[in-house]
Amino acid sequence: MLGFCIFGAGQMGSVHAQCIAANPKASLRKVVDVNHQAAEDLASRYGATVAADPETALADPEVDAVVIATPPAFHCDLVVASARAGKAIFCEKPVSEDIASARVAVQEVQKAGVPGFMGFMKRFYSGFRAVEEAARAGSIGTVEMVFVTNRDPKVTILDYLKATHESAPYALIRESTVHDFDMIRALLGEEPVEVYVAGSSKIDPEIAALNEIDTAMITLKTASGALGHINNSWRAVYGYDQRVEVFGSEGMLRAENRPETSTVRYTAEGALHSRLFSGPPSMDQFYLHMYADTYGAELSHFIEAVEKGTPPKISIEDGLRSQLLIEAALESIRTNRPVEVAR
Amino acid sequence: MLGFCIFGAGQMGSVHAQCIAANPKASLRKVVDVNHQAAEDLASRYGATVAADPETALADPEVDAVVIATPPAFHCDLVVASARAGKAIFCEKPVSEDIASARVAVQEVQKAGVPGFMGFMKRFYSGFRAVEEAARAGSIGTVEMVFVTNRDPKVTILDYLKATHESAPYALIRESTVHDFDMIRALLGEEPVEVYVAGSSKIDPEIAALNEIDTAMITLKTASGALGHINNSWRAVYGYDQRVEVFGSEGMLRAENRPETSTVRYTAEGALHSRLFSGPPSMDQFYLHMYADTYGAELSHFIEAVEKGTPPKISIEDGLRSQLLIEAALESIRTNRPVEVAR
Amino acid sequence: MLGFCIFGAGQMGSVHAQCIAANPKASLRKVVDVNHQAAEDLASRYGATVAADPETALADPEVDAVVIATPPAFHCDLVVASARAGKAIFCEKPVSEDIASARVAVQEVQKAGVPGFMGFMKRFYSGFRAVEEAARAGSIGTVEMVFVTNRDPKVTILDYLKATHESAPYALIRESTVHDFDMIRALLGEEPVEVYVAGSSKIDPEIAALNEIDTAMITLKTASGALGHINNSWRAVYGYDQRVEVFGSEGMLRAENRPETSTVRYTAEGALHSRLFSGPPSMDQFYLHMYADTYGAELSHFIEAVEKGTPPKISIEDGLRSQLLIEAALESIRTNRPVEVAR
Amino acid sequence: MLGFCIFGAGQMGSVHAQCIAANPKASLRKVVDVNHQAAEDLASRYGATVAADPETALADPEVDAVVIATPPAFHCDLVVASARAGKAIFCEKPVSEDIASARVAVQEVQKAGVPGFMGFMKRFYSGFRAVEEAARAGSIGTVEMVFVTNRDPKVTILDYLKATHESAPYALIRESTVHDFDMIRALLGEEPVEVYVAGSSKIDPEIAALNEIDTAMITLKTASGALGHINNSWRAVYGYDQRVEVFGSEGMLRAENRPETSTVRYTAEGALHSRLFSGPPSMDQFYLHMYADTYGAELSHFIEAVEKGTPPKISIEDGLRSQLLIEAALESIRTNRPVEVAR
Repeated sequence: MLGFCIFGAGQMGSVHAQCIAANPKASLRKVVDVNHQAAEDLASRYGATVAADPETALADPEVDAVVIATPPAFHCDLVVASARAGKAIFCEKPVSEDIASARVAVQEVQKAGVPGFMGFMKRFYSGFRAVEEAARAGSIGTVEMVFVTNRDPKVTILDYLKATHESAPYALIRESTVHDFDMIRALLGEEPVEVYVAGSSKIDPEIAALNEIDTAMITLKTASGALGHINNSWRAVYGYDQRVEVFGSEGMLRAENRPETSTVRYTAEGALHSRLFSGPPSMDQFYLHMYADTYGAELSHFIEAVEKGTPPKISIEDGLRSQLLIEAALESIRTNRPVEVAR
Repeated sequence: MLGFCIFGAGQMGSVHAQCIAANPKASLRKVVDVNHQAAEDLASRYGATVAADPETALADPEVDAVVIATPPAFHCDLVVASARAGKAIFCEKPVSEDIASARVAVQEVQKAGVPGFMGFMKRFYSGFRAVEEAARAGSIGTVEMVFVTNRDPKVTILDYLKATHESAPYALIRESTVHDFDMIRALLGEEPVEVYVAGSSKIDPEIAALNEIDTAMITLKTASGALGHINNSWRAVYGYDQRVEVFGSEGMLRAENRPETSTVRYTAEGALHSRLFSGPPSMDQFYLHMYADTYGAELSHFIEAVEKGTPPKISIEDGLRSQLLIEAALESIRTNRPVEVAR
Repeated sequence: MLGFCIFGAGQMGSVHAQCIAANPKASLRKVVDVNHQAAEDLASRYGATVAADPETALADPEVDAVVIATPPAFHCDLVVASARAGKAIFCEKPVSEDIASARVAVQEVQKAGVPGFMGFMKRFYSGFRAVEEAARAGSIGTVEMVFVTNRDPKVTILDYLKATHESAPYALIRESTVHDFDMIRALLGEEPVEVYVAGSSKIDPEIAALNEIDTAMITLKTASGALGHINNSWRAVYGYDQRVEVFGSEGMLRAENRPETSTVRYTAEGALHSRLFSGPPSMDQFYLHMYADTYGAELSHFIEAVEKGTPPKISIEDGLRSQLLIEAALESIRTNRPVEVAR
Repeated sequence: MLGFCIFGAGQMGSVHAQCIAANPKASLRKVVDVNHQAAEDLASRYGATVAADPETALADPEVDAVVIATPPAFHCDLVVASARAGKAIFCEKPVSEDIASARVAVQEVQKAGVPGFMGFMKRFYSGFRAVEEAARAGSIGTVEMVFVTNRDPKVTILDYLKATHESAPYALIRESTVHDFDMIRALLGEEPVEVYVAGSSKIDPEIAALNEIDTAMITLKTASGALGHINNSWRAVYGYDQRVEVFGSEGMLRAENRPETSTVRYTAEGALHSRLFSGPPSMDQFYLHMYADTYGAELSHFIEAVEKGTPPKISIEDGLRSQLLIEAALESIRTNRPVEVAR
């Protein structure tokens, strides 16, 4: 039985609390949030208690592992503190938007020898996971090209964009493509060494007015000459479009979109299949609908890694690698050139 | 908030207890089972208490509704007792294998004016539900032919078959086709008036030795001349094959099988899609995997019907109708003739 | 090079003439038709000449093989005459609607030792052919159930029905199901011994007024207990619905419908795939569009069988077997009973 | 009836001769080839005669239109000569690999006012054509991203590559991508203004040794900010992979691959669909198999444009535009930078 502390009692904290409650090998012990009421509500719902601050929680011997689901600015310090306290770490992305800090976090986790896991939940989606495992197992020979399609059904981020644009531009890359960078690294099985971004603003005049992008195609190269492509949009009116394709010397693997239901209506106009699995069009949290099963799956994986002492599938260093790809992508947007990825 | 009593603390009782716990409008109050320990375990897991017998439970004013998940032999009496106690009734199939008793149960529920619901969960599977709703809404005009495919991935019922064959032969019809009778009535939107069964024993020499059937094609006719077809098998090695098709004057509706994952592997031999959604081949409770979402959905529906005072989608009388179709089907097997369905 | 005579210069005669012209191993030599102008037109288009009557044509040593594409009433006599003349025979269905005559034709062909082939072209459709070959090769183990779906996109036969109803009722069985009888025999790999027909009139009041059927479900049994199902309709508004499914002890084979084009349009309503491959909705000869490639394929097969001296895939006796199934089906409609198939 | 002269009696000349013969509005009159025997063979097969040289053929008043299917080096001069002779022109790609010459050809055709058509046959494939028409009709709103996948099943071009590498490197772009440039211009509905190529050599050490590429991802931008992506490979072992996808403000259009047959085999391992429609793996001319219907379709289109005096769907200027994209692509490979497209 692994005792958990959750840092951050917001939406993602709640999701993880629910998964912990449903997992027979996990038990929620502590919740920490600057919003004391939110912490109290979450804790009481699952029979846990509130800790006044991270230090107190990390000092608790009943806490074996932490889930870091605070706003991003606090991730890095919590990773470092948890590592020093000897706790197993499950951290939502990003480890840190500051590369130097992220490198420190990686080092501290390695030094402490604790399990560290980045919660890129898409890697645990059954379709993507099966593709990754088959590619890694060599089922299509040498990987030559990889494609990742990641398109949101609607713009949900406009206010965030306006608020953060000055300090941290290109939220499309930071918030959407970051998942695809993690994914494409896993599917390529090799580090990208160069990134080129073709970005555009096609969706909302307000986004265009900010000189921001909402639509992008990203090309990556690895040292061996494998090529990667990511495409992003914030408005796929037909649903949440989530696909991967891996092309190799002996075949191809794809994870297709799946329909909301398995129904088809045949008329003189054609065969109308159900819309993409992404909840009703009015739903803003389409990702929670689409990836509902992944949160429990990543928690199970994390617990198993901690119990067996095996390295988790996505390490804190993997979190750093995705951040380095973001940096190269941002530089590519600024210069309209392919940009080398820092190591 | 609807207070529930569960009769029967076995597998299905547990499934319903879990759904009640997850439903914000429901609360588990009582559990009754002749196996006192099982009742105790289930009750304590969800903060309920054990009632010594049905009478006690039904006398409890905190119990607004009952879930009947005992062995079939007790269903009918519990329906009648619950109706007389003024409780809303959620009854697993069958209402009764004895037609006369089933008729009594229907009358008692009607007389009591309580909501009565038969838990044919497949009707709440998203694909089938969408087909039924579209057919009822006239989206393909007049229904002319309906097809239901229901094939288990493996024989799990052999011991049961041996034990019950003498007293109640043709478990394929009683246990498998019964779901399809309920489904096809809903998809036809009309009562079948005649049934013809072509049955066969193809799977297991032990089944053949009993003169039993494990494979069947069933043809139904309605008064308006619409035709229905059901096919059953207890061994579809490729997975749990669950499909419906409704053919009408203005089109066709189908609910296809769905794959376990959305992955496809392309090689020189072809494109290998994932096997059918039915859990790993070793899994015996494939229906719990396939229909995992339906149990919560039918409970929500039941609660909504109780709250709004609207008739549930599947009434106790619908349970009787499916039993009448079973009777006609059994007679057809004995005589190798189309048989008229009793009213 | 095989020299051909075509009996019957109508639509099917023209189709076969075109295939003969396109086949490097075939040459059209003679055309015979009571409509002399039609014969002349067809012959001149492909560099052949007209023969005044069958006797003259059959006496021509340049004629190695005959294609019989006259009205059905003449098929049987032409088969017999051609057999006696030692010609290889390619006969459109039916060999004869009169069972006794059909038996004579079979005997004469066997006695003459000439190759005899029935032109059930659907057997040469790539999808069905692959299913048949895989089933015969044992790729899904023992065949347990077979399904054939055959639905025309529109009623094209109403005038024919009115004209023939008195003398030869149930054109649906005679003209549509006959193809499916041939197909299901091949897919079962075994003779059906019993047939049950549930027929209905759902499409056109004029058809209903004739007490005719336009919609049917047919159940067949073999001696080994394998089951077959055929369903027919004369009005599938969504296109020409042509599918087969073979279910066996080790898997399932299906030939799905194919779309008119490979395009899909995704919108908020769903994914609209192209309508079924059946030509534009206005097209009456949808079968020529759907099965365009089969006519050349069956001719190639026939030529290869003649050249190699191997038995053609569909013999004149197979033509008789399909007629015997029609007889049983008609008797089943009259009696509403399963009917034994004559040998 | 349009009288045709074919320049070039090789493989493509033969394909066009066959289409002309099959088209009721066309008649083959003349064939010209430096290989006199080839010209003679082709002409006699379809009742035409040989002209000694282009001048003679173009002077023939019975020749209304020409098909230019010679080696590429002769295309441009024949376009110019045919235009000056007032003939309608059907020219295989490229119009000229020399941009200055291509511009002259465009001007001469415009000056002469004759119909000029470039034979990019893929544009007439039913799936792609339907996507193009739907995109142009606005069925998915404003086009924002376009994807073209073009992967050969096998390397068939190695000898050609070795022979031409020095004088004209990057045959992948010149011979494969050129079709995709034509396609993507049509799907975007707008001119690309910038091209970036990420190329790689993954397939054959001999290709790598030449510093050539066999695998590529190409990114294009238009003035409005629409983005295009092309990916190419010379070795898709699973078949000839030919897809397009158009993403717009109101939906998405795709032309999927189609299977060789519509069969599916279901087993415990999954559902094995037929391999891609690309003929048997041993077939080298997979494009003739895949695009068999397009050659007749483009000829029909050309004839209709000539008869009606409407501009053909693909003009000689369109041929120039694709060449300009090739030039930009080659420059991008040399510099590893996005390159502006010349006008």
